[in-house]
Amino acid sequence: MNAQPSRVAVLAHDLFPGRAKTATGVIRYADYDVAAVLDRANPGTRVSDHISIPDDRDAPVVESMADALELGDVDALVVGIAPIGGGFDESWRDDVEYALREGIDVIAGLHYFLGEDEDFSSLAEEHGATIHDVRKPHPDLTVAEGRASEVDADVVLTVGTDCSVGKMTVSLELTRAAQERGVDAAFIPTGQTGIMIAGWGNPIDRVVSDFTAGAVEEMILEKGDDHDVLFVEGQGSIIHPAYSAVTCGILHGSMPDAMVLCHVAGRDAIHGYEDTAIPSPETYVDLYEDLAAPVHPGEVVAGAVNTSAIDADEEARATLDEFGSSIGGPAADPIRFDADEVLDALLGDRGR
Amino acid sequence: MNAQPSRVAVLAHDLFPGRAKTATGVIRYADYDVAAVLDRANPGTRVSDHISIPDDRDAPVVESMADALELGDVDALVVGIAPIGGGFDESWRDDVEYALREGIDVIAGLHYFLGEDEDFSSLAEEHGATIHDVRKPHPDLTVAEGRASEVDADVVLTVGTDCSVGKMTVSLELTRAAQERGVDAAFIPTGQTGIMIAGWGNPIDRVVSDFTAGAVEEMILEKGDDHDVLFVEGQGSIIHPAYSAVTCGILHGSMPDAMVLCHVAGRDAIHGYEDTAIPSPETYVDLYEDLAAPVHPGEVVAGAVNTSAIDADEEARATLDEFGSSIGGPAADPIRFDADEVLDALLGDRGR
Repeated sequence: MNAQPSRVAVLAHDLFPGRAKTATGVIRYADYDVAAVLDRANPGTRVSDHISIPDDRDAPVVESMADALELGDVDALVVGIAPIGGGFDESWRDDVEYALREGIDVIAGLHYFLGEDEDFSSLAEEHGATIHDVRKPHPDLTVAEGRASEVDADVVLTVGTDCSVGKMTVSLELTRAAQERGVDAAFIPTGQTGIMIAGWGNPIDRVVSDFTAGAVEEMILEKGDDHDVLFVEGQGSIIHPAYSAVTCGILHGSMPDAMVLCHVAGRDAIHGYEDTAIPSPETYVDLYEDLAAPVHPGEVVAGAVNTSAIDADEEARATLDEFGSSIGGPAADPIRFDADEVLDALLGDRGR
Repeated sequence: MNAQPSRVAVLAHDLFPGRAKTATGVIRYADYDVAAVLDRANPGTRVSDHISIPDDRDAPVVESMADALELGDVDALVVGIAPIGGGFDESWRDDVEYALREGIDVIAGLHYFLGEDEDFSSLAEEHGATIHDVRKPHPDLTVAEGRASEVDADVVLTVGTDCSVGKMTVSLELTRAAQERGVDAAFIPTGQTGIMIAGWGNPIDRVVSDFTAGAVEEMILEKGDDHDVLFVEGQGSIIHPAYSAVTCGILHGSMPDAMVLCHVAGRDAIHGYEDTAIPSPETYVDLYEDLAAPVHPGEVVAGAVNTSAIDADEEARATLDEFGSSIGGPAADPIRFDADEVLDALLGDRGR
């Protein structure tokens, strides 16, 4: 994915918004416009009926690609659902084929590569459309050289207590807030949604395991001398029974100077692995810092908690205070409130 | 690689024995016979001129595949060199083609898959030979379910201060020593040499990073109810700037009950990453145990040190004692001395 589209439709059938992390991420953060969301379960509604979103990012929800095009042209269809296992649901095929037949590009982040589907690839060729499988690593990846710390930029990595705790969102919010303060900050995407939003990046969970750190390092070296701060999107959790390898590779490959520990209020076990209890925030701080130290010392400087499950603002603020006390730094919910204190802690004199 | 050969030649040109880890591993541990080693730098010598080896595992060193076949039939050629990056050296091509033309199978563990080389694959087809690329993962791997601890066997994982510190050798020596005590022990291979020796296994450093833990778990679940103890071959080191992802995935995927910390006497920085100092043994014990604990608690019970760089036995024993004191358990060099104390500590009442 080297060219950014300007106006897209987002496929999110039946799973929008709760289980359509890619769709909501693109709607909230991408530089391009979202013309419509395809969700056959909710035609006739609007995005703002389902999630809290600024007016200028609102869009209609329609039933099909054909309906989306009646509202105006788009230059890409984004597959905005990333099911566990990354498969392709055959019920999406009609919309993808409709788009390709109209010469519209398709952008997907599945483990199932649409470009290797013969029907899709021949339709794309016939109608001059391009299929972007953003989860397909480029073929020249190799092992890390342990050089990420050489770049001029400060490197800030979001780390998690679990998967789906807001690491990408926090990285994007911090990047934007830093830029608003006049700091030259850049976002380093490591997953399919981050790549769709940024228009570039290595899908770290899909690379050969030997190259996990190397694929992150490559991005840091590419961008690190052109910016003052890099906010690196973390993945998984260092105690995740399935995905900790990805987390560990990103930790050592990016060599962060500072980390932000991300959590979701109320979660007490790893999602889908209920036997694995979530330990205290202090335990995570020690694990991440101790594991980072022999390669490159970095501190957990701040926290971020998704408090959306808590109704009262006062209670949400108390939760943030408690989390911050545990880790010895400020904690924010940048979606509900703001990221000011966290940014102060991360940027020091640079962002005042 | 599902069928084991019975008699092989081992290609190790110019790098035997010091940088031919796969060749020496196969010569020392494989169930099949080694008829000859191909090393154009040392024709006319014998394996025992280069490494300490039991008489029944000695073999002549010859210049080429043609010379090897003059000494008798073999049913496979093993590529016994695994250079950094896993490439194929074109100077090996004549020997590989000679073997295939004679209908002899070729077994390789490179990142470069010989079966995808058109010259090799057409020769193999023409002459009825099979190419086994043991570093090619099977296509049905998936994410871990966090279930390795459910098996009947105790799981023992070798962990390292660095790469190439003897984790495979220690795992194989402990498996053999346990079997000699009448314990039903099995070796779980995770790298190309281990797979060549055992004749099965998943090459963990080559799987998709999301599936790192899952590929280990699959092997534990497959073998864990048929044996009393599994010795899992570890990879890399949890502080390796490039390979820690693989190490972390094996740690959480195998859910070890006990760990053996492996080291090479005299090494004080990560090989090839001289900026990364090797911390104290105590630090490694804490890192491995603390990282394991939230998923499945496991202790570093013993150590293993390669003391081959130390001349005097007395000094070697002092080094082992010191290492053992640091980690709070016995430490052995199973190649130089024996593994008795370490095995006592690991097996408890089971192996007396």
